[in-house]
Parts: sequence; C-alpha cells; structure tokens
Amino acid sequence: MYIGYSEAETFLRNCKDAVIITHQSPDGDCIGAGFGLKDILAELGIRSRVVCSDEFPSRYDFMTNTGAGEDFEPETVIAVDIADTKLMGKYKDIYGDKIQLCIDHHISNINYAEKTLLRPKATAACEIIYDLAKFMGVEISRHCAMCLYTGIATDSGCFKYDCTTPRAHEIAAEMKRSYDINFAEINRAMFEIKTKARMILESKFVNLMEEYLDNKLVIASVTLDMMKEIGINSDEFEGLAPMTIQLEGTEVGVLIKEREPNTFKCSFRSADSVNVSEICRSLGGGGHEKAAGCSIEGCTLQEAENKIVEAVRKAMA
Amino acid sequence: MYIGYSEAETFLRNCKDAVIITHQSPDGDCIGAGFGLKDILAELGIRSRVVCSDEFPSRYDFMTNTGAGEDFEPETVIAVDIADTKLMGKYKDIYGDKIQLCIDHHISNINYAEKTLLRPKATAACEIIYDLAKFMGVEISRHCAMCLYTGIATDSGCFKYDCTTPRAHEIAAEMKRSYDINFAEINRAMFEIKTKARMILESKFVNLMEEYLDNKLVIASVTLDMMKEIGINSDEFEGLAPMTIQLEGTEVGVLIKEREPNTFKCSFRSADSVNVSEICRSLGGGGHEKAAGCSIEGCTLQEAENKIVEAVRKAMA
Repeated sequence: MYIGYSEAETFLRNCKDAVIITHQSPDGDCIGAGFGLKDILAELGIRSRVVCSDEFPSRYDFMTNTGAGEDFEPETVIAVDIADTKLMGKYKDIYGDKIQLCIDHHISNINYAEKTLLRPKATAACEIIYDLAKFMGVEISRHCAMCLYTGIATDSGCFKYDCTTPRAHEIAAEMKRSYDINFAEINRAMFEIKTKARMILESKFVNLMEEYLDNKLVIASVTLDMMKEIGINSDEFEGLAPMTIQLEGTEVGVLIKEREPNTFKCSFRSADSVNVSEICRSLGGGGHEKAAGCSIEGCTLQEAENKIVEAVRKAMA
Repeated sequence: MYIGYSEAETFLRNCKDAVIITHQSPDGDCIGAGFGLKDILAELGIRSRVVCSDEFPSRYDFMTNTGAGEDFEPETVIAVDIADTKLMGKYKDIYGDKIQLCIDHHISNINYAEKTLLRPKATAACEIIYDLAKFMGVEISRHCAMCLYTGIATDSGCFKYDCTTPRAHEIAAEMKRSYDINFAEINRAMFEIKTKARMILESKFVNLMEEYLDNKLVIASVTLDMMKEIGINSDEFEGLAPMTIQLEGTEVGVLIKEREPNTFKCSFRSADSVNVSEICRSLGGGGHEKAAGCSIEGCTLQEAENKIVEAVRKAMA
C-alpha cells in the first residue's frame, strides 16, 4: 500500500523499535537514510538498528560513527532506498517478507512492503526523510543533517544530474543556514579524495572504454584480475559509472564489474534521453531513468557484453 | 568606491550603452556574468557589447549564441568577475583606467573601478548579478537564467566547494521552479563531457603529480610539448586544477601550465585550511582563499616549481 507523509508519521510514532535495512553495496544515500532515520527515531525515543548485508565503507564513517545500534529482536522492520527485496542480500531471507515500511525514491520499486512511502521524483531517499522529519516537526540533529545532506549530494552527483529537484537545493540551503557543518569537506570526501589505486584505475579507464552502436554506447569492463593487479577494493568503485558517459556523443554508458567469476554487476548511465531503467528491467534489474543497474550471471564477460549491446540496441531502435 | 545594490541599480538604469569586459582565459562565471548582464541591460533597453581578450571556448556557445553585440564607442565601461585590470589582457590598455562599474566577488579585487559592487562571499559574479536583477525587479529571461546558473555552477564546482553559499542553492531552486531549462545538460557540458584528448591528459595526470613537503603539496606541470603530443588545446584545461588536491592528505595543489616558453600560468587549490589567495599574492597573483592563481615568467619550469614550493612552505610554516 502506498502511503503519504501523514500515514508514515503515524506509523513511526507508533513504533516501539525498528530494524532499518539498507541495500547491499551500500552507497551514500542508503547509509544517510538509514543513519538519518535512526537519529530521527532516537529523537522520538524509539531505539533502532541499521543493518546492511555488506560492510559500510570507511569513507562513510562520519555517518556510521554514531553506531549501528545494539542487537535486539525488532517489532518493526523498515527498508530505506531499496527497490526490491533481492537487494537486501542476506537480510532478504530474514526480513524480506516482513517489511512493514519502505521509504524509497526508485520508480522501479516492486511494492514489497506493507506500507510504502514512495516519491519517485525525489532526488534521494534522504530528501524524503528530511521532508518527513519536517512534516513531523521532529528536530533534525547536526549528525542527522550531515547524513541527509550526504544522501542527497551523492545520489545527485552533487546537484549535477537530472534527478536534482528544486527541493534538493532548498534543503541544502536550509541546512547551510541552520547548521555549522563543513559541507565542502563532505563533498571532498564523497567526490574528490581518491586513493592512489583509484587514481590509477581512473587513469586506465580511457583504455577500458569500448564503443558500440556508432559510438552511442560505451562499455567499460573491470575484471577481478584487473582489480587484483591495481590493488583496488570493490568499494572504491562508487562514482565510476558516470565516467562511461563522458565522451561527447555517448548516449548510454555501462560499467561492468566482475563480482566473482561469471558474475557481473552492471551499472547503466544515460546521458540524455534513453531510459536505462527499462533496459535494466529487461535484464532483470531496475533503477532510475538515467541511472540503473542489473546483475548478469552464469556467462563469460564477452557474453555479458553481447547481452548488453543487444538490449541497448533494442531500446534505441 | 564600494557600492551596494541600490547604487548599482541607479548606475545601470542611467547607462546609455555599455561595454562589458570579461577576464582573459574566460570561464563559465565571467561569460555567464557578461552575457547575463547583457540580457538584463537589453531588458532595460540599453545596448551593450561583451568583450574578452581571448576567444570564448565553443562549449560556452549556449551562452554566447545571443551574440557579443555590435561594435560601438561606449559611454560606459563595466567589468565583471575581474579582480585586477591586468586580467583584461589587451583591453587593459584600452579601458583599464576607464572602468566605471566593476561587479566582482574576488576578495583580492584591487578596487580599480570608479564604483565597485563587491560581494567577496558570493559564490560567483553571477550570483551577484542575479540578486541585482531581482533587486531591480528586472525580468530575467530564460537565456539570462542559463548564463547565471552556469556561472554559479562552474565557480562552485557544481555546488561542491566551500564557496557555495545558501543563496547559490536558493537561486538554483528558484530557477528550477521557474524555467524550463535542461540544467543537467548544462552540467554535463560543463563538468562531464570530455574530448578524447582531455581524457588522455587526465589519464596521464596521475603520473604528472609530484609530491612535496611531506606530500602536503602536489604540483602537476603540463608543458607545451606535452600539449602538442596529446593534441590538447589550452581551453580544454578548465577544471583540471581541482585534480591536484584529490589525493588524501594533500593540502595544496598547483597546476602549472606552460603558456609560452618560460611563462607559466599557475592555478592553486587548497583542500582545507591553507589560504592560497595569500600565497598567490606573494607571487604576484590573487584569487580566493581556496582557489587562486598567478603567473610566473622569465624562468625555467624547474625554477617556477621551486618558487612555488618555497612560497607554500612559508605559508604552511
């Protein structure tokens, strides 16, 4: 059932406690949403715990440093920024069919929760949670503001992408007027600071890019061997997918990352008019119109690339 | 004489015509300010012409496509986004001592104009011009909004840097609510689309970076030979300087670009607390606390690098 802010408020105010699930391969938005919501629940005197199937990368320490929360058998299960239970990793089996509230901004949300606060036009799940807190009149702590800002900034490419709403800018302005937060430092940590390994990977990126379909499609594939050679971790890949659409004339860019042999995580980006959410749905995934993803398994890299080229060719036809 | 919005309004409303000077090596902010102000003057029935010592790079065509304006002997001379007359290039000799109004946001402005509307905390000259137009109650056309947005976005690294004011976000929100503009397309053109030559240059960047002062200073130098080898133009360098501070631990980054033999344009960036405006002033340049520049002439690249290392060492002491 889709609900609005008022019903979401009623639900949250009546929680005794909650587990908040974030998606696997956690990013700034789901971590910001998880830990931001935890702060808001704490203001209401409700204990909660943030869980994730993968570890939170260390560059998000400034959000996770309040602690994920003690272990307890929860009465309430909330999912944030998760379009599909299969993105919950190991928590799918534990909580997948018990999600009471989902707060999400993915148009591809499969409506798996009892109640879903879905705002498909919101920049980020964090934008929805900020507005929900304002709606509820709950105090947003400085730490909570840092979390929610980070989610909005990371999902919008720092206010760069088409998904950036006027509201996202208004929230940033409100936060800059209300809190003594070093936003530039957050942005630097999210978008600029790189490890040497990441810089080396980026420097090789131009050679990884293969052009297809009259150069309208670019695919860059990073294999496990390559990652081992450069010495780069899987969690240093965030923000790499947009590099696939930086060449003039590119319409769709795909970053293929080998997760394990014959298992590929594919991140799609659209430069302008092609809807990559639809393409990814045809490949068993989902996401937003301009940023989506899917997994391709049980085949070679070459076969995975061929599948992608065919799916994009069809979508562009 | 420093003036406020009210005196600037009086000045503009009493103009018969105006030449608007932008700085050499023109960037998004001075072009946006120049062509945005030209639109505003046109609304007031005042003809104007935008001039620059260098050609406007083609990626700014969407701003300059309204035309720089016909040639005429101007009654009024206005400078936008120019801290010092020496940044006017060939227009210094023609108009340098005749600037009646300067609209600028550089704290290093040397106060060369008769009247100066200086807002050193503004994100961009375009932020000041937007607020001035609002103050005056002048209609901001769609094209003018595109120009002013571009200046704010480019000078703030798309709302990423410390200089990004709450007002910058509010203006972006107002524009997104009022105009049918493809902001994401502007951002893509300004921050993402790259020529193959630029991509190759970036891919070599990690090898160009030399670390000094316990890795707190990074200098990357691009010589004329290197530019020739890669086949990259001087105007494809914008946005490269921030790459000098992307390694964790770097406090100051400097991009040295050989303009002609023994003449080096040096762009400084500060990651956090070092004031590079002061460093650049000690080297005969200027700018903002976190982004500044200077020219070093009449010496070898090695000597220029040594000068920079010494100046930064002193500033950090």
